[in-house]
Amino acid sequence: MSIIKPSIPSGTRDFGPDQVKKRNYIIDILKKIFELHNFLPIETPAMENLSTLLGKYGDEGDRLIYKILNSGDFLNNLPDHLWKTKDINSWIEYLSDKGLRYDLTVPLARYVVMHRNEINFPFKRYQIQPVWRADRPQKGRYREFYQCDIDIIGTDSLLAEIELVTLADEVFTQLNLSTTTKINNRKILQGIAQWLCVDAEGFIPFTITLDKLDKIGLEDVLSSFKEAGWSDNNITKLKNLINFSSTNKDWSEVEIYLNKILGDSEVGLAGLDEISFIMRNLDFINLNNNLIFDITLARGLNYYTGTIFEIISNEMSIGSICGGGRYDDLTALFGLQGLSGVGISFGAERIYDILEKLNRFPDFITREDKILIVNFGENYLKYSLPILLDLHKAGFIADIYPDEVKLKKQFNYANELKFKYVIIIGEDEIANDEVSIKDMYSGEQVKISKNNIISYLKNKEL
Amino acid sequence: MSIIKPSIPSGTRDFGPDQVKKRNYIIDILKKIFELHNFLPIETPAMENLSTLLGKYGDEGDRLIYKILNSGDFLNNLPDHLWKTKDINSWIEYLSDKGLRYDLTVPLARYVVMHRNEINFPFKRYQIQPVWRADRPQKGRYREFYQCDIDIIGTDSLLAEIELVTLADEVFTQLNLSTTTKINNRKILQGIAQWLCVDAEGFIPFTITLDKLDKIGLEDVLSSFKEAGWSDNNITKLKNLINFSSTNKDWSEVEIYLNKILGDSEVGLAGLDEISFIMRNLDFINLNNNLIFDITLARGLNYYTGTIFEIISNEMSIGSICGGGRYDDLTALFGLQGLSGVGISFGAERIYDILEKLNRFPDFITREDKILIVNFGENYLKYSLPILLDLHKAGFIADIYPDEVKLKKQFNYANELKFKYVIIIGEDEIANDEVSIKDMYSGEQVKISKNNIISYLKNKEL
Repeated sequence: MSIIKPSIPSGTRDFGPDQVKKRNYIIDILKKIFELHNFLPIETPAMENLSTLLGKYGDEGDRLIYKILNSGDFLNNLPDHLWKTKDINSWIEYLSDKGLRYDLTVPLARYVVMHRNEINFPFKRYQIQPVWRADRPQKGRYREFYQCDIDIIGTDSLLAEIELVTLADEVFTQLNLSTTTKINNRKILQGIAQWLCVDAEGFIPFTITLDKLDKIGLEDVLSSFKEAGWSDNNITKLKNLINFSSTNKDWSEVEIYLNKILGDSEVGLAGLDEISFIMRNLDFINLNNNLIFDITLARGLNYYTGTIFEIISNEMSIGSICGGGRYDDLTALFGLQGLSGVGISFGAERIYDILEKLNRFPDFITREDKILIVNFGENYLKYSLPILLDLHKAGFIADIYPDEVKLKKQFNYANELKFKYVIIIGEDEIANDEVSIKDMYSGEQVKISKNNIISYLKNKEL
Repeated sequence: MSIIKPSIPSGTRDFGPDQVKKRNYIIDILKKIFELHNFLPIETPAMENLSTLLGKYGDEGDRLIYKILNSGDFLNNLPDHLWKTKDINSWIEYLSDKGLRYDLTVPLARYVVMHRNEINFPFKRYQIQPVWRADRPQKGRYREFYQCDIDIIGTDSLLAEIELVTLADEVFTQLNLSTTTKINNRKILQGIAQWLCVDAEGFIPFTITLDKLDKIGLEDVLSSFKEAGWSDNNITKLKNLINFSSTNKDWSEVEIYLNKILGDSEVGLAGLDEISFIMRNLDFINLNNNLIFDITLARGLNYYTGTIFEIISNEMSIGSICGGGRYDDLTALFGLQGLSGVGISFGAERIYDILEKLNRFPDFITREDKILIVNFGENYLKYSLPILLDLHKAGFIADIYPDEVKLKKQFNYANELKFKYVIIIGEDEIANDEVSIKDMYSGEQVKISKNNIISYLKNKEL
């Protein structure tokens, strides 16, 4: 058999021990806070039927879904006239009926519809699982990555929005990151579009261009609208609005201003009412991070119908690290009408990158207080194995070096794997019912009676 | 758009909140004990190159690997003469170059070879991730399931075997399950095969038939060997050996007996030495569960070369719930020679089934002490939102009902979702700076001063 030089598919990653521990540090904080807020965990299969996935993410999305080859010899079933076309698109239903999940939102909608009789609404669920996209691999973009989603399904209450803002604030406080939460409402954007004489068809292109403000700047955004045929008057109105919004961060002033320009738009005023409720009641909560209303926040996804959020780091420019919004009819895709939902998704990969670059991962993640017992051969196991067991029972991470090799090699291993203590049990120690404990960080070495090992180490750790 | 009645692929599962919590209970115990023993976590991609996967699991295994359709129009690249064959097997390299991982062992070998320069050997790793197999779905067998593996790579030391036995004992003790660990050694099986005049080619069929003893019984096993042409003398020898082994559980007697029959087999005696070392030194450790030497334990997988293990439940007949063994050259598949390894895999799905049927999941998993604050409308949020925040800060799982609906509906929700406490903040309570707390289990309802909520609840939980 020829030897294969091993590799992994491009866009995928192996995670070594330190990386897994750091990733789990983030995920554990998310889980803990999700659970404090009574979000309940669900897990869905990696594979979904293609009928569930296709048509939900646009044409581009459909292309990026990983499709799984059907088992058996599907060519047997392929009609001759299709085989002759040699046209892959006409073959797809014979080739594949399953795909890897592309996000956690469509599986959630599918889950809620399938399990609606077991669920007590409002349903607060969290889900932390990988998703797969056949995207072009590039720096910071992967073909397999985790999503960490929370959603509240089955209530129109704006308390849900308030909870999401509060919860995200708790997450980033705990992660020791300074952030700004931007908030807007798709209904306000609709009202503004009406005020600017944008018709219904022009609404989506309007939001898409507006959303680029951060990237291309005000002048280019305005030029785009000019090219699209806007009147000078409307361009000036938009320019003034954006300028006002970017310099007036106090919500009460913004509210008065918006009330004026949205006066003729029923939907716009409804959106303004929603944001007002959220802002008014968030006043009763001390947020650690910034919260601003941002009229230019639009969010790409068309299924949002109300409040939209996006959270950015104040310390690093890396795009949004959390985002989401309210959608009024997601489960309608699968035949269940009238369930409003709101959710946000935390970008664990970007949060990881920020914590790494800002050096904010706590030391304890990769440098626990581990103990290595040296190995002097079988005759010593009678003494060392019970000690090893006692250490485990007391909750210490402990190990015995597996081979009887030179002490130097064993100490090197202890150093490389960042053991804090090395316990030496040689003839002298056994004769005196003692062990020697060396602190690898301080270099200090002491002899301790066998019965006092645990209490000695516990004292050191205090 | 037509509405799809949603479903999931057969052999896959959705996990609801209670199931996820119970699964995490098992996984968290495994992780905690793996980490106490200084096993380090790694994660590998769900997708591996087919060149990594194929040829490692036999022809049947190759068929059961889920293959992922290549992106783009691969038919363009398919040579005309292959297209004309309409033979799927000749097309496969054009259709797919990636598959879903089938187990965690081949990815481990691939990982070790790729990362050998970053790894400090001996390398103790744990990995808990799903695997996928295009198996025929049946009761208790799924197409997506978790594996929980630990392996020690890069040492011949039998301390590794001792650690695995000890660790598994700790796991099942913590899970409150009574088990028996069966241990054997492939080298002893080779020695016995020699003693029974089985030639090298007959060894694998010998172990496969022997392995069926539990299922088909002694008589049928012996008949099989008779049919295979064994002499009466050898059949009698095997029968006596099995009878001896099944009635003599004391290792020292078994050791004397095996020494006699393996006297002429170098490999057999080497295996006996290994088991003796393990048994002798396990005497220094108080195991909570049974450990027996079982001469009929063979394990299906051919890559095992030394010690083999299997753990069964003493309380339920469900097959093995943990198994593994030593393999001398797994990484040689990818070009790295001479790395001996030993590992075991915990069957989390079966452990789940046992805990469920024996009712051994602790209550606290699904019945936490959660608190629901009732919603009387916006005017009350000024009082209730800060209380909600304080509860979270104090570590209580707490929620406010999102909608202002009848109290009865809110209490029903509290019941269904197993909230232990409901906090009522109405006009009277606000006037007196109090809240009412109802214990949903006992029915007791008390008024507590607003400043004493946390201390009251903490006291109740003691």
